[in-house]
Amino acid sequence: MTSRLRIVPLGGLGEIGMNCLALEAGSRSILVDCGVLFPDDEAPGVDVIHPDFTYLVQGPARPEALILTHGHEDHIGAVPYLLRQIDVPVYGPPLALALVRERLKEHDLGREPRFVETRPRVRFDAGPFSVEPIRVTHSMPDSTALCIDTPSCRVLHSGDFKIDRSPVDGQRFDEGRIRQLAAEGIALLLSDSTNAEVAGESGSELDVRDVLGRLIDGAQGAVFVALFSSNVHRLQILFDLAAEHGRKVTLVGRSVQTHERVALAAGLLRRRSDLVVEPEVAAGLPRRSILAVVSGTQGEPGSALTRIAAADPSRPMRVVHGDTVIFSNRVIPGNDRPVQRLFTALARLGARVVHRSIEPGVHVSGHAHQTEQRALIEMCRPRAFVPIHGPRLFLERHAELARSVGVANVRLIEDGEALELDATGSLETGGLVPHGRVHIDGSAIGPAALRERLVLADVGVAVVVLPWRGRAPGGRPLVTFRGVTDPAPGFEERAGRAVAEAIEEMPEVRRTDREDVRETARLALRRFVRNQLGRTPMAIAIVVEEGR
Amino acid sequence: MTSRLRIVPLGGLGEIGMNCLALEAGSRSILVDCGVLFPDDEAPGVDVIHPDFTYLVQGPARPEALILTHGHEDHIGAVPYLLRQIDVPVYGPPLALALVRERLKEHDLGREPRFVETRPRVRFDAGPFSVEPIRVTHSMPDSTALCIDTPSCRVLHSGDFKIDRSPVDGQRFDEGRIRQLAAEGIALLLSDSTNAEVAGESGSELDVRDVLGRLIDGAQGAVFVALFSSNVHRLQILFDLAAEHGRKVTLVGRSVQTHERVALAAGLLRRRSDLVVEPEVAAGLPRRSILAVVSGTQGEPGSALTRIAAADPSRPMRVVHGDTVIFSNRVIPGNDRPVQRLFTALARLGARVVHRSIEPGVHVSGHAHQTEQRALIEMCRPRAFVPIHGPRLFLERHAELARSVGVANVRLIEDGEALELDATGSLETGGLVPHGRVHIDGSAIGPAALRERLVLADVGVAVVVLPWRGRAPGGRPLVTFRGVTDPAPGFEERAGRAVAEAIEEMPEVRRTDREDVRETARLALRRFVRNQLGRTPMAIAIVVEEGR
Repeated sequence: MTSRLRIVPLGGLGEIGMNCLALEAGSRSILVDCGVLFPDDEAPGVDVIHPDFTYLVQGPARPEALILTHGHEDHIGAVPYLLRQIDVPVYGPPLALALVRERLKEHDLGREPRFVETRPRVRFDAGPFSVEPIRVTHSMPDSTALCIDTPSCRVLHSGDFKIDRSPVDGQRFDEGRIRQLAAEGIALLLSDSTNAEVAGESGSELDVRDVLGRLIDGAQGAVFVALFSSNVHRLQILFDLAAEHGRKVTLVGRSVQTHERVALAAGLLRRRSDLVVEPEVAAGLPRRSILAVVSGTQGEPGSALTRIAAADPSRPMRVVHGDTVIFSNRVIPGNDRPVQRLFTALARLGARVVHRSIEPGVHVSGHAHQTEQRALIEMCRPRAFVPIHGPRLFLERHAELARSVGVANVRLIEDGEALELDATGSLETGGLVPHGRVHIDGSAIGPAALRERLVLADVGVAVVVLPWRGRAPGGRPLVTFRGVTDPAPGFEERAGRAVAEAIEEMPEVRRTDREDVRETARLALRRFVRNQLGRTPMAIAIVVEEGR
Repeated sequence: MTSRLRIVPLGGLGEIGMNCLALEAGSRSILVDCGVLFPDDEAPGVDVIHPDFTYLVQGPARPEALILTHGHEDHIGAVPYLLRQIDVPVYGPPLALALVRERLKEHDLGREPRFVETRPRVRFDAGPFSVEPIRVTHSMPDSTALCIDTPSCRVLHSGDFKIDRSPVDGQRFDEGRIRQLAAEGIALLLSDSTNAEVAGESGSELDVRDVLGRLIDGAQGAVFVALFSSNVHRLQILFDLAAEHGRKVTLVGRSVQTHERVALAAGLLRRRSDLVVEPEVAAGLPRRSILAVVSGTQGEPGSALTRIAAADPSRPMRVVHGDTVIFSNRVIPGNDRPVQRLFTALARLGARVVHRSIEPGVHVSGHAHQTEQRALIEMCRPRAFVPIHGPRLFLERHAELARSVGVANVRLIEDGEALELDATGSLETGGLVPHGRVHIDGSAIGPAALRERLVLADVGVAVVVLPWRGRAPGGRPLVTFRGVTDPAPGFEERAGRAVAEAIEEMPEVRRTDREDVRETARLALRRFVRNQLGRTPMAIAIVVEEGR
């Protein structure tokens, strides 16, 4: 029997997103979650970011199973990219696996993926470990924590969780089972730090039901509700409220339609078949009979709500004067300005816009606040604690909390920093493993190209083409700009002349040196633009040899 | 006598920033404030944005005076750009004018600007109007509201304000004077909407003093405090606390040094001359004797704090294990991710990082919350109300508040929407005037170039150069990439061959059409990259004629 467990975080410890954690016993290992991170303006044009899997592919212990805690993108979104690199069976709750299947439609693996559905309280073997999923409450149904019995000790991985005392689907946080497992001794608790800076409790979905009910009750026109599409609990609430208030529901946007279809098929959503109508049908109903559920809460370009706000004529559902638009979500940090633009556009169409700053009760978080985080630690009474899921400061805060309730061994690690745990619950540094971020823009895009994009965005690009004949410049330089200045008559010609003059001023002996001429042209172009516009573009000089 | 007043907002009604409002009586007018807006990721590379001044330059009523309420950038930052276009005397409190002078050092007007210092309760004439500045409290000293007596009626413009009952500089919000002016009748109140979504009161700077004092008292190592550099009240508090706790102050960053120098010269800041030492000197002191005040609270690239967090070796002041870094500010919406990166970097250096989510009392806003907004309306009892300073939803909220306290005429306008007020306080639409945003990147950059930058940032650029000889393609196409993919051996050559093949496959008759060949090459290059990488770059094809 192996006496040590290695904990190897590849993502999610140092950021919100791309959660991915390997657990190793000797040369055998499993992986918990495999998610993506959504890019910010440091990575323009990038669709998603996933953890670098080099360690898993080349490392000492190839994972024998991937276990998913639940179906959110930051926990499952990178599965297709992992499965392209290694063939590993994927265990997870039915909803999570159904959502992975949806994702895989966009990828060609060239083989059938191996899926194994998990059930709460039903234990299974994964590699050298015995794993038992435990029901937790969260902002999507079918979410689990994991009790992982390793050859040396017992680990509890919280997944993403909150403690909702009145869950919409009646599936309660399984505190009883956690207490049983804890009675037998938990060596290590790995717990969700997303809301480690937020005091108190996160609140129940049922509280949101009351607030939404009141808003729908008071609305004269159509009601639009924007939400995170994966929040099936919230969707259930809206179905129920629509039925009560005699409104038909229409689903606008591919994302909310997909999640509804998948959740219905998984039996996790209930509604009368005639409750939901197509947007074309809803648009013809009296405004008071419409409840539109819309994707696109963050002002994403091209999303359903952004297009509705822009009064896109190709959309059957429009916002008109007297309608109400409820943002039943939070603004993801960094999106404040696009969201404020969305508010403005909707208000200009005559809608009453209700969001969290105006009506705090329209949303509750799916992640435990401090009180619930403390409750989980006290339920588990672990010998060791490692905070997961969050930026460094959130992890620090959660570590402080664990210390304050008396956990003996608390360690803070970030992506790539391995940790070793022995059977007594003592933790030791396990060295640094290869880790990082892979940016996906169609295919993977490297760091040099990303840096170039940031420069291009800031200053634009100027291209000068220099004809070359035999051993000397052979004609007029041609200049082209993009993102430098709006078209101005003669500007490119003047830039070309400035480059030509700089070349003519070179000593004869240097003018036969092609590389010297190229660099002179490049610098002359930069100088010309700086003098004219006060800003230096990225400049590219290309020498074209005649008669090749 | 003119019986109507026209209110013409050119900036700040529909955004936080670039505040600029014209008031017109017949063919005569004045301008209140002239600020900039800081760009978001919709305008990469842009330094600042100012209102389009076309209406002021060409419009029916050239302003005869510019009156500044206080010295924040969003109220004075565009003065240099305005003064380049029209010569107008600038009235303002001494601190605001001193800060405009600092800004003008970077601009060559070719003439001396005309400045007139204003004082609270000291009335002056500006064009056809009589103006009286009124002392208000705000996050910078020397802030004023304006009572503007127009030929037809009395207007009160709040400037930026809060109601701080215990201001650091002892300069109280002049409620008494406002009540006197109101007793004579105020037709229109224009009031600051920045915090229209926030309930309660903003709180006093003195509350911040207590929190900062406690943190400094408990700190073992050096204390770094990051703040908005213009917050001279906060700087005064830190000077006083440093003296009490036996710490020397060092100012790190040009912005905080400039504001300290200007405020000292204006007599708005008091300290012992030996309290402040150079960073080089401070770095040599015992850690417990250091209080460093640092610019760069938002994770701005190149700012003092960003460089300190990056352990820049050229900076004498470093953060070491055991130090405390206090963010005595708020995160400006949109900056959450760079700020979180800053927190992480500082925490990795071993600092205790304290910010508003952890310790809410480290900052109070300089703008009135709802309770104070209501108090001002009740003080003024205006016949008409127009909310200013904020995005549309904030203005709506503030308008609702005014209606709820019984103001008869409340109108919501945004930039460019003129409004006409008669002596009875009734408001009528005054049509739309030319307005917009001018983006400054060195010089002004136009909308087409900005759109190109956004595309370049998302997809990078591919350039193909085609030699042309006589009446046909004359050599191998040359391909260059930027921001498309990291250097891969032979990738550019393969792209060039793909373009060459596409040209060879053209029917003979088309291959003599230079424009047809150029477009074929451009599309072939796009296709090649899309097939290879799954993403289509901006493609530029340039034909170079031989022997010109």
